[in-house]
Order: sequence, then C-alpha cells, then structure tokens
Amino acid sequence: MPEAPAIRTEEEVMFFDTDCGGVVHNLAYLRFIETARTRLAARLGLEVVEMAQEGEFPALLRTEIDYRKPARLGDKLCVEGQLESFEGVRFWCGFRILRPADGEVLVESRQQLALIRLPAGRPMRLPAAWAETYPELEAKGGQQSD
Amino acid sequence: MPEAPAIRTEEEVMFFDTDCGGVVHNLAYLRFIETARTRLAARLGLEVVEMAQEGEFPALLRTEIDYRKPARLGDKLCVEGQLESFEGVRFWCGFRILRPADGEVLVESRQQLALIRLPAGRPMRLPAAWAETYPELEAKGGQQSD
Amino acid sequence: MPEAPAIRTEEEVMFFDTDCGGVVHNLAYLRFIETARTRLAARLGLEVVEMAQEGEFPALLRTEIDYRKPARLGDKLCVEGQLESFEGVRFWCGFRILRPADGEVLVESRQQLALIRLPAGRPMRLPAAWAETYPELEAKGGQQSD
Amino acid sequence: MPEAPAIRTEEEVMFFDTDCGGVVHNLAYLRFIETARTRLAARLGLEVVEMAQEGEFPALLRTEIDYRKPARLGDKLCVEGQLESFEGVRFWCGFRILRPADGEVLVESRQQLALIRLPAGRPMRLPAAWAETYPELEAKGGQQSD
Repeated sequence: MPEAPAIRTEEEVMFFDTDCGGVVHNLAYLRFIETARTRLAARLGLEVVEMAQEGEFPALLRTEIDYRKPARLGDKLCVEGQLESFEGVRFWCGFRILRPADGEVLVESRQQLALIRLPAGRPMRLPAAWAETYPELEAKGGQQSD
Repeated sequence: MPEAPAIRTEEEVMFFDTDCGGVVHNLAYLRFIETARTRLAARLGLEVVEMAQEGEFPALLRTEIDYRKPARLGDKLCVEGQLESFEGVRFWCGFRILRPADGEVLVESRQQLALIRLPAGRPMRLPAAWAETYPELEAKGGQQSD
Repeated sequence: MPEAPAIRTEEEVMFFDTDCGGVVHNLAYLRFIETARTRLAARLGLEVVEMAQEGEFPALLRTEIDYRKPARLGDKLCVEGQLESFEGVRFWCGFRILRPADGEVLVESRQQLALIRLPAGRPMRLPAAWAETYPELEAKGGQQSD
Repeated sequence: MPEAPAIRTEEEVMFFDTDCGGVVHNLAYLRFIETARTRLAARLGLEVVEMAQEGEFPALLRTEIDYRKPARLGDKLCVEGQLESFEGVRFWCGFRILRPADGEVLVESRQQLALIRLPAGRPMRLPAAWAETYPELEAKGGQQSD
C-alpha cells in the first residue's frame, strides 16, 4: 500500500517575513504553506498551471493553523505537507513547519479544499486515481470531522 | 451590561489582493483581519504601539478561517470583529468579512491570542478591566472549546 | 486651468508592514502607493473594475522610489499622488508618503504606466479627455525624461 | 582580477504572486529581488542575521525597476544579482529577472543601499575588503549617477 502522498519544501526567513516583534509574522507561515500545497498538488496529479488554463482552480475552504513557536530572521525552515483524507468533492491536507536546526515544530495546520471550475465555481470530482491509490485516505459517510 | 466590544473596519479590494483565479487570494482576507484585530485591540485597551515600546506583543496562537464566497477586484468589504471570550491568559476574537452591496458573508474566522512579554516570551495577565466590564465573556474551568 | 488631478489616501502602519529592523519594510510603502494609484486612476476616469471586465489593465512599466526616512508601527501616513505628465500611450504618476504628525516626507516615487488590452497586451490610447483637461501635462516630442 | 560578486536565485510563480490580470503582480518581483539581495549580501560578507544581532541593517535608499514582460503562474524564473559599484557609505546592486524557458528578460532593477546602525540610524563604513577585492567597482569623486 503506498504511503500518503507527501511533500517537503524549504524556506529561509527573509526580512519581509518578520515583523517588529522580531519574529516571523503569522501571514508569512501561511505563504510558506501555500508553496508547499502547490507542490503537493502537483504530486497528486493536480498541475495548477494546466488546470488554470482549463478554468479549474483549487479553492481553499477552511484553514486551521496553530502557532507553537516563533521563527526568526535567517532561520532555515522546512514545510512538510500531505494529503490527509478526501470525501466526495472535498479533501484535507495537513502541514507542519519545522526548524531542522533544533528539531522544533513551529506551526501545524490543516486545510480543506475543493476543486472548482470557473466561471460558475461548481465543484469538480476529485481525481479517480485517488480512491484507487490511497483507499485508506477515503472517508465515507460522515466519518469526517468537518 | 455592556455589549461585547466590537469593531468594524472597511477594505476595498485592490489588484494586489487578487490572484489569477480572478478572486481575492486567501492570504489577503487574513491581512484584512489583522487590521481589524489591531483596531479591536485598541478598543480593548491594548494599544499595540505603547505595548511594543514595553516589549509587549499580542501573540497569535491559533486561527480558524472559513472561506464561504469569493470577493473580487473593487469589492467594498467590511470586517466585523469582536472579543468572544477569555480565560486565564488567553482570549478568542471572532471576525466576519461581509460585502455590504449584496449582504453576503464571505469569510468567518476565530483567532486565539495571548499577550506576551519579550524577550522571554512569557504570557502576561489580561487586563483586569475585562473581567469587570465583560463578565459574560469570561470562561471558567474548561468551558472553553480549545 | 484645472490643477493636476491629485489624490490623497491614508494608511496606518500595521505589524505586517514592519520588519525585524523595527521599521516599515520597503515593500509596504509600494503597497500603499498601489492603493493611492488605484484611487488616482478612478479620478482620471480609469475605473479598474470596469476596465478589467473589458480586458483592459493599467500596466506598470517603471518605478523609481526614494526611501528618505523610516515609518514605524502605528504611524499614521498619508500618500499624495498625482498625474505628472503623459505622452503618446504612456503616463507618469508621482507619489509622496508623508507623516502628518511631524511633517516628514518619508518616501518619494514616480511610476510610468500604460494601458493595455489583454490577451494581446497591446497598448491603448489614453483618454482623449486628458489632453483637453490637462494640456499642461502633455509632453510632446521627446520632452520626457524617459 | 575577481569578477563582480554575483548571485543567482530561483523562483517559481505561485498563485499569491499573480493578480486578476493573469500575470505576476509588480510587488512580487520586488520580493524575489529581496531574496536575491539577501543572498548577494551574504556573498559580500554581510550576513544579515549576525548584523541584525548587532543592530546593523542594510537600508534600502532607492529602487529603480523596469517591468519589460510579464511572468505567469507556474513560470520558473531566475534572479541574477550583482554588486555594481560602491562609493563612500553607499553601494548599488543590479538585478535581472529572467525566464530561462524562453530566455526573456522580464525585469531589470537597480537598488542603492547603505548599512546603518540602530537605534541612531547612522551610516556605517562598507567592508574594507570591498576596495581591495573589487577596486574596479569603487566609484570616486562624483562619478556616480546618483
């Protein structure tokens, strides 16, 4: 059985990521997660460029994010992301932002998404391959927390 | 009994708030909420400028945000924010982003915060006036959802 | 003769505008200028929402910006913008960011723009009304600095 | 004689870099340049983390940027940066943003900087090693364009 499809990206904290409290601003972590999610989507067969040309876009429905410890200027961070579950037209991804230098988990987040087709914005079916490849991630009949 | 302290700010969607899907990017709504939260903090006796000069900062611990409908270029939005509850050293604020032109609620969010003092990052007591002024918002003994 | 069309917007410095140097990050001033420029465009008959629906967009060709003094958390700033000159399909706008509390000019900037029509990206004629209304701003035959 | 110290960084265009015109927003290119400049600074002996701990910061004095062609979602870009010249307490860096897939130069920019020490904000001497290592980049007696 294949593992949950997962991705790992790297970020280095720049001045524009920090604020005058001396730490990374809460919005910057979410930008890091956006980048990781785009890479994760490609891994899952969702190439955003090709999709956008067809008028198809991933739509973020919900974010939950816990800020545990702060990152600082120059910190090298890594973002781990994975597909956590899917059901019907919706799916959840999970992310952790870590600082490898000291092993700290700085941020944890979950995001719920759907694929939509513009201009109507109607939700699309998730790729059929997911159910075949990751049957253990498919939630059925209200087992989902949302 | 005084009402929950609340604030209302206004935003107009600029090009830099949108993405190539033609709608406002999810990060932009959170920037709008940041602005509203700063104004709400001032209403609650937390002046961020004076606090920062003392090394005191509001620390965001958790965000939950639901994206219900998209905003578009030029939309005039309003952000409603209020103190929802507090307990010990933590407090929750709630936000809604509305589009007055059609009455739609586009985004709903809750954020949990604490006040911390740098450089140690130790949590500070919340203003004593809150318990006196807003007793109905004080949660006690695990009545809180977090 | 009418004055140069001008606009004035207001900004208040938020945490997300600052960096760990304790001052406003250079990118934030340019975001302030974007907002002022959108308002100035409307004053000049260029409503970006209506234009975007027609596939017409203002395209920024060049920015020059001088950072003279830093702004800080909580500073209330105002951005003054005006149409400086136009020639052929191009026009220049000028901006100043001031801190009314002490009268300091913090930032000065000039931007060159054109109007383009997508998808081809071809430049459009500037509004005919400009030459009639602001003849003193029309540059002719290489009098322009660019 | 050593070449001008230069750096090359890579970026991939994300949704948050684009706007509803379908292309990369002008502010995003400047964020890419910020990252390249931080890497260039390290190459020149200016480690921003160590400097910040001493209260020393690079201060951006001026940016000139020309937007030549637009980048789009998913484009892989590279940013080339180099030290162009220095004189007294000021120095100029130059940047180009290219799209290797078609060889297009999308953006060109020059930035003037100084090093300052907080809280007074007084300018600092540039590293003595620069004059020894890059004598051809040292401008003397008003040969500079600014």
